[in-house]
Amino acid sequence: MAKEKKLVESITSMNEDFAQWYTDVVKKAELVEYSSVKGCMIIRPYGYAIWENIQKELDRRFKETGVENVYMPMFIPESLLQKEKDHVEGFAPEVAWVTHGGLEPLQERMCVRPTSETLFCDFYSNIIHSYRDLPKLYNQWCSVCRWEKTTRPFLRTTEFLWQEGHTAHATQEEAEARTEQMLNVYADFCEQELAIPMIKGRKTDKEKFAGAESTYTIEALMHDGKALQSGTSHNFGDGFARAFDIQYTDKDNQLQYVHQTSWGLSTRIMGAIIMVHGDDSGLVLPPRIAPTQVMIIPIAQHKEGVLEKAEEIRGKLGAFRVKVDDSDKSPGWKFSEQEMRGIPMRIEIGPKDIEANQAVLVRRDTREKIVVLLDEIAEKTGELLETIQKDMYTRAKAHRDSHTATAVTYEEFKQAIAEKPGFVKAMWCGDRACEDKIKEDTTATSRCMPFEQEHLADTCVCCGKPAKAMVYWGKAY
Amino acid sequence: MAKEKKLVESITSMNEDFAQWYTDVVKKAELVEYSSVKGCMIIRPYGYAIWENIQKELDRRFKETGVENVYMPMFIPESLLQKEKDHVEGFAPEVAWVTHGGLEPLQERMCVRPTSETLFCDFYSNIIHSYRDLPKLYNQWCSVCRWEKTTRPFLRTTEFLWQEGHTAHATQEEAEARTEQMLNVYADFCEQELAIPMIKGRKTDKEKFAGAESTYTIEALMHDGKALQSGTSHNFGDGFARAFDIQYTDKDNQLQYVHQTSWGLSTRIMGAIIMVHGDDSGLVLPPRIAPTQVMIIPIAQHKEGVLEKAEEIRGKLGAFRVKVDDSDKSPGWKFSEQEMRGIPMRIEIGPKDIEANQAVLVRRDTREKIVVLLDEIAEKTGELLETIQKDMYTRAKAHRDSHTATAVTYEEFKQAIAEKPGFVKAMWCGDRACEDKIKEDTTATSRCMPFEQEHLADTCVCCGKPAKAMVYWGKAY
Repeated sequence: MAKEKKLVESITSMNEDFAQWYTDVVKKAELVEYSSVKGCMIIRPYGYAIWENIQKELDRRFKETGVENVYMPMFIPESLLQKEKDHVEGFAPEVAWVTHGGLEPLQERMCVRPTSETLFCDFYSNIIHSYRDLPKLYNQWCSVCRWEKTTRPFLRTTEFLWQEGHTAHATQEEAEARTEQMLNVYADFCEQELAIPMIKGRKTDKEKFAGAESTYTIEALMHDGKALQSGTSHNFGDGFARAFDIQYTDKDNQLQYVHQTSWGLSTRIMGAIIMVHGDDSGLVLPPRIAPTQVMIIPIAQHKEGVLEKAEEIRGKLGAFRVKVDDSDKSPGWKFSEQEMRGIPMRIEIGPKDIEANQAVLVRRDTREKIVVLLDEIAEKTGELLETIQKDMYTRAKAHRDSHTATAVTYEEFKQAIAEKPGFVKAMWCGDRACEDKIKEDTTATSRCMPFEQEHLADTCVCCGKPAKAMVYWGKAY
Repeated sequence: MAKEKKLVESITSMNEDFAQWYTDVVKKAELVEYSSVKGCMIIRPYGYAIWENIQKELDRRFKETGVENVYMPMFIPESLLQKEKDHVEGFAPEVAWVTHGGLEPLQERMCVRPTSETLFCDFYSNIIHSYRDLPKLYNQWCSVCRWEKTTRPFLRTTEFLWQEGHTAHATQEEAEARTEQMLNVYADFCEQELAIPMIKGRKTDKEKFAGAESTYTIEALMHDGKALQSGTSHNFGDGFARAFDIQYTDKDNQLQYVHQTSWGLSTRIMGAIIMVHGDDSGLVLPPRIAPTQVMIIPIAQHKEGVLEKAEEIRGKLGAFRVKVDDSDKSPGWKFSEQEMRGIPMRIEIGPKDIEANQAVLVRRDTREKIVVLLDEIAEKTGELLETIQKDMYTRAKAHRDSHTATAVTYEEFKQAIAEKPGFVKAMWCGDRACEDKIKEDTTATSRCMPFEQEHLADTCVCCGKPAKAMVYWGKAY
């Protein structure tokens, strides 16, 4: 038990220092290793296996809506990046520039893609001619690069993995429908697979994507009360189409500009999984996304029949992702490892259990122990994994709700932000000046204007002018 | 039929101009689009769907051997690239250099990874301490960048997609076994899934990977008689371990260097699929890797019951990847499209077929038509797809065998290379001077020293000195 203690003690408690707790978990659960490449992370097998599960499920959901995958170049020539004015202003300050190829300087420097709107637009201008060519519903899984001064694994890194969808449509209505559809795909995915409740809403002009007409977002609340933007979906109208001359001939033989969208979700979501569900023993993974759902840990495994029984149980659990930890470590050490890695449940099986034809199921999320007969173990495991998945969502939602305040006056607002970390709902006049003032006074930013609006007051919480919308405010990652 | 003719005529015949035929096929089958990023290609949905099938099957085979996926940074600081002398000499002339991040010049420039040995070594030196940490069997799927002067889609592009496996072992024997094991995984995959026969062998010192002790390769013969290196597996011995100080404590508490391997297969293999199996009507895809295995094409689809029957047939073929082409194009046009895209078989179903309770199966590879009763269609489709897969392999092997010559004298050698494109088997003394001379005289290079050696003569085909090995020679992509 000395070893176990050491392992557990080596994590900082989340209440003591949440940032250090986060760093400890990503390292000790072996999700990530720091690299000697500044600002870039190494995603280790356990972290990458979670990402693979995310990819697989999200990709399946994309394809169900007609999306096809492609692969675009990783470089963007400077002249191409500059074609859309707002876009280049947004991204040029944070890209990596390639200036030499082999031993020669390049005639035109190229950036490593920070996002690929300009490449897709260039592509679409070549392949879209007629209304018959529409819609185009393309997506790519790739890595992108944004030069960051301060970085944290998953949350903010110079290079990160993501998918970026880029679509072109005949009409603005279709583009709008797709923008909302993909936001819903993200929200459903996060709620059903990751057990993370999301606020769906629209970004203010200040916070929207460079070049977009409107940006929709899903926002989650972390355990420490800070918000995390978890996925965005943008409607570009015909702005990019005009800049890149993407026109098609409609049914009446008239030239029309296409209307476009883009939408992305990145490895940042790994940060949300960690910070929504984790606890002082480490990671807690939702069963649907966990690389290993059940760890079977034999007790007194040197005794006759124990390992055989552990294997027999594994055989019965073929419908789940199950491992047996038959290493030569102590059971206590194995428990700690299973907990650190957030494996949703473990099954303890020892000589006394075998005698009683039973095993002990232990939930990672609540630590509850449930004794079950071996004959029922497959059924009970399935039920318990479903229960854990549901309970994790419910707990995350309860935490968010209890960390969401309402403010009508500016005093209430400042007090809410200062005293209890979380979302604050408040009315807003629509002026950027108030957003700026709120940020200066409190460091909170507008997270979104939620689709589910409430009428809290008639006037803006900041300036007192007539209110246009209710906004979720909060400090954010 | 006018439209159909136009589509087919627009491909250059392979015998007339093989290079142009290749370019036509990648464009018309919509595998690739050229981009405005010099030397980089856009992989379109149809091309990417083939790559996804390759990834899925290869990844499954890797994982069966215990390999785990990770993700490493896309950048390599110059000082890290320089740590292994041979390696930097091999790659420095062909990398893209990032010199600026955002608006600031970098203190140390970084290249975009051309391959990731140096990053994995740096990583391994941090995480390997004891014999308990070995072996490490890591792989990543990513894009890499090598600056190329002349490029061709899939065959040679500045950026390409691949997987790169990197392993670390306690002993040289284990590293050697893994090097061979992965070469066998590649060869089996290519033969069973892609229907491409491979020569397995070892590269000469001249042709081996920069920094490797030995490089193994699988070599395929294209329809035009040129060779294509299709995958490689390298044994590094402890060379990189010494350069990067990757040591572990063995069971006797002694410090030891690890022994390493790496192995890669890239989107280049798409070029092999095209050039081994394609014909003058376009692509011919092996059924196991085809995104669509069967295209059902209704004849006189406006007539009552035809489209319904086509859908009914699709319903019966749920075990396969099947589409119905119910677009408003003519059947002839649809046939041409299905042939251009290399869909392994089509099913023609029209009013007369329905009356006779039958359908016509048409093989893409041989164009053979087979009339089958609708009650047997699932069974017959399954059989036919298997037959096509087998026959494609057999045909490719027969082509390779009939384009493999044997030379004992240098005159025979030069004549064989000049007169009939293909492999030439000949003995070699082991001296680089002879390889250089042969290349200068004939433009052929040593492809490999095959594992299956034959004794053709006692002396080197070039210099007449005692022979050390039989070598496959050929002109190559």
